[in-house]
Amino acid sequence: MNTMPRQNAAAPSDDRPPDLIVQGGIVVTIAEGHAPIPGGCIRIRDGRILSVDADTALGPMETHCDILDARGGLVLPGLVNAHCHTAMTLFRGFADDLPLREWLYEHIFPAEARFLNPESVYWGSLLGCLEMIASGTTCFMDGYFFQDATVEAVERAGLRALLAQGVIDFPAPGVDRPEENLDVGRAFLERWSGVSDRITPGLFCHSPLTCSKQTLQNAMALSLEFGVPLQTHLSETSQEVDEIRERTGKHPVFYLDAIRVLSENLVAAHAIHLNREEVALLAERGVRVVHVPESNMKLASGKAPVQDMLDAGLCIGLGTDGCASNNDLDLFREMDVAAKLAKVTTDSPVSLNAPTVLNMATRGGAAVLGMEKEIGTLEVGKRADLIVLDLNRPHLQPLYNPCSTVVYSARGADVRHSVVDGRVLMRDRRFQTLDAEEIMKRVSEISRTVQ
Amino acid sequence: MNTMPRQNAAAPSDDRPPDLIVQGGIVVTIAEGHAPIPGGCIRIRDGRILSVDADTALGPMETHCDILDARGGLVLPGLVNAHCHTAMTLFRGFADDLPLREWLYEHIFPAEARFLNPESVYWGSLLGCLEMIASGTTCFMDGYFFQDATVEAVERAGLRALLAQGVIDFPAPGVDRPEENLDVGRAFLERWSGVSDRITPGLFCHSPLTCSKQTLQNAMALSLEFGVPLQTHLSETSQEVDEIRERTGKHPVFYLDAIRVLSENLVAAHAIHLNREEVALLAERGVRVVHVPESNMKLASGKAPVQDMLDAGLCIGLGTDGCASNNDLDLFREMDVAAKLAKVTTDSPVSLNAPTVLNMATRGGAAVLGMEKEIGTLEVGKRADLIVLDLNRPHLQPLYNPCSTVVYSARGADVRHSVVDGRVLMRDRRFQTLDAEEIMKRVSEISRTVQ
Repeated sequence: MNTMPRQNAAAPSDDRPPDLIVQGGIVVTIAEGHAPIPGGCIRIRDGRILSVDADTALGPMETHCDILDARGGLVLPGLVNAHCHTAMTLFRGFADDLPLREWLYEHIFPAEARFLNPESVYWGSLLGCLEMIASGTTCFMDGYFFQDATVEAVERAGLRALLAQGVIDFPAPGVDRPEENLDVGRAFLERWSGVSDRITPGLFCHSPLTCSKQTLQNAMALSLEFGVPLQTHLSETSQEVDEIRERTGKHPVFYLDAIRVLSENLVAAHAIHLNREEVALLAERGVRVVHVPESNMKLASGKAPVQDMLDAGLCIGLGTDGCASNNDLDLFREMDVAAKLAKVTTDSPVSLNAPTVLNMATRGGAAVLGMEKEIGTLEVGKRADLIVLDLNRPHLQPLYNPCSTVVYSARGADVRHSVVDGRVLMRDRRFQTLDAEEIMKRVSEISRTVQ
Repeated sequence: MNTMPRQNAAAPSDDRPPDLIVQGGIVVTIAEGHAPIPGGCIRIRDGRILSVDADTALGPMETHCDILDARGGLVLPGLVNAHCHTAMTLFRGFADDLPLREWLYEHIFPAEARFLNPESVYWGSLLGCLEMIASGTTCFMDGYFFQDATVEAVERAGLRALLAQGVIDFPAPGVDRPEENLDVGRAFLERWSGVSDRITPGLFCHSPLTCSKQTLQNAMALSLEFGVPLQTHLSETSQEVDEIRERTGKHPVFYLDAIRVLSENLVAAHAIHLNREEVALLAERGVRVVHVPESNMKLASGKAPVQDMLDAGLCIGLGTDGCASNNDLDLFREMDVAAKLAKVTTDSPVSLNAPTVLNMATRGGAAVLGMEKEIGTLEVGKRADLIVLDLNRPHLQPLYNPCSTVVYSARGADVRHSVVDGRVLMRDRRFQTLDAEEIMKRVSEISRTVQ
């Protein structure tokens, strides 16, 4: 039964046929108040959604359109990975099950220093893009180094991304002199602003501990100048919180507020070790938060108070973090774990229910990236970023409730088609923009030099 | 480099060629002290492993053997799901995100009472078998009702299983008079004992709360008589622990010991709310435990002290529980979550490392089922139950450490081939024994009557 009112573009500018029609399938728009549309149809032109309804009959002008068969499937907005370090696919499985400092200082940082360069970041990012296309992510927020290489990879892949150049007050890959970090950042922003509809450049301050007050303030000023959010890691470990308190006399959120960096333009990833007053202040200032449960678990960083943050009205997206601490970029797994971890943490099976988690991985992520008017739901006029899940699999049957199926049973490998900006990036699990064999071969070669 | 000494059957009884050769791939035997064998080869005859080595060259007698191509893959023992309720696939996604008592008493129990019958259990079990074959499980321990139907399903699927008839002291599906529960159980044991190499009948006491002292003792006596382990849920919720303490004056483990049910023949699933003395007593008595982390999280039951139990020397397997509380039967997901939950629970990223978890899902599970001499590792003379993972996927590259890749990156859908008793149940993701379309269609029809 179609309980959703039809959406149609009020006054299409012309009567050209759609470029792409996603035909059949149960459409879950994620838009407020919309019920799933069985036998739904989405018409797309010039990268945007023309209509979302149950009209699967093709008009005379439409018989030559490209048709994406979604029958027996579930059509969803593409997922938004709101926090990752894409090129770290290079270090997937490189160092696991180690104490945090040993992992970071004896394995990850040295490997990054030795092996990151524009070429390795390019191939590592391409591998990450492949994995995201294959697992239903159509847009992501990334923070890392050598971001020009990542821009090139994402451009080639056809994904949408907010790619942030890393800023840290000690020598970093590609930036030998920390005092040049923000110059590198400004040049990056200037180079890529407005160049692509799909790619937004940004800045990523590593953390309030590894970036000085001045660096944080300058990075925020620069981000505001270019109209993009500033990313940072926030209160990921209790040790980091202790160090900031020792250094500044304040809890991290209050410290950021005191230096005027806490604002709607800040995106805080992890956000684990927060007291009640900090959660309230984050909400008051409109800070956007990214929940990263699997990485937080694997590194034993802690359990973020995600239900409290939702209750406080915070805007929250979902992220995977990098592959060195997860070890994948699959947001389906992340949704499942997010819902389950919240329940066992709060001793309540009603915490973070399936619709809430699915919302977080779509609309929530879009809002975190400042793209809520363009993506995150399937609505007329929005960018056509969508995925089709194949429900014809043993572990997705029977189907009682699409949201439950998506969050608790589906996984990345169930994605059949992936579309960004109306362009098909994966069709029937075949990549349309990238050569998977070449990318896996190149990354494998690079990995042999890392070991 | 092959650092493992070759294993060859000392004196093969004859020189007949193998029935099946698993050729190429990195063989991870899981046997104590074995390193992975790159370019490995496993020869199989009469359902058992003839040899495990790096000799992929086919002998003159072997050119007509059935060859399973494992190149570019990882060969592992089939995973053992040590606790599930297979036919509950019927209720996957039927009722989620609800308070525990409401979920159980207002949704699951009434649905079971109304819709379970030999036919629905048969089709639900077949769907579970499909899902397990597709996700790398080759053997499982099941506890439910109408188990004759499950025997029939598993027989048709070709899987290995210990199928236990449910025993509970109130009217249950298929058993209107609780006092007949054990008669039903005895008849079930008599009917199926020794009938099949792959299927072992057993008993499953629902819990020390829902089964009386007499029932528990009789079920244990009956299990010992037939030489099979007795399963039970143990200390799954704190409420259950409180009720047993009120009723008996003892913590559940001490209560079971007092009534002489705590022994090597007991398999305890969940085992969450245990104090130190209980963990020590479980170890002293040699009770086998099944860790069920995803269900424990989703129902907000709690976090089992799995690292403490390992430290105490307990034999532990890994289970998914039923699809109403997980919502899948994928042990790859379960391994990943088990490792991560242990880390965040103990505040230590070294807890439950990848080899330990992989061990739990293979050798541990085999030992829980009392089958450690027959399955759980890839060794000469053992039953040929194995799976081949396809590593040629973006999310499984690069490969630094096979164990890390299996636990933290792989998922059920990466399984390419599945073999039980030397018989190929899935080849290149195509089911060889079951008709997936028919099973999904029948379960879908049944699900429409449940809603």
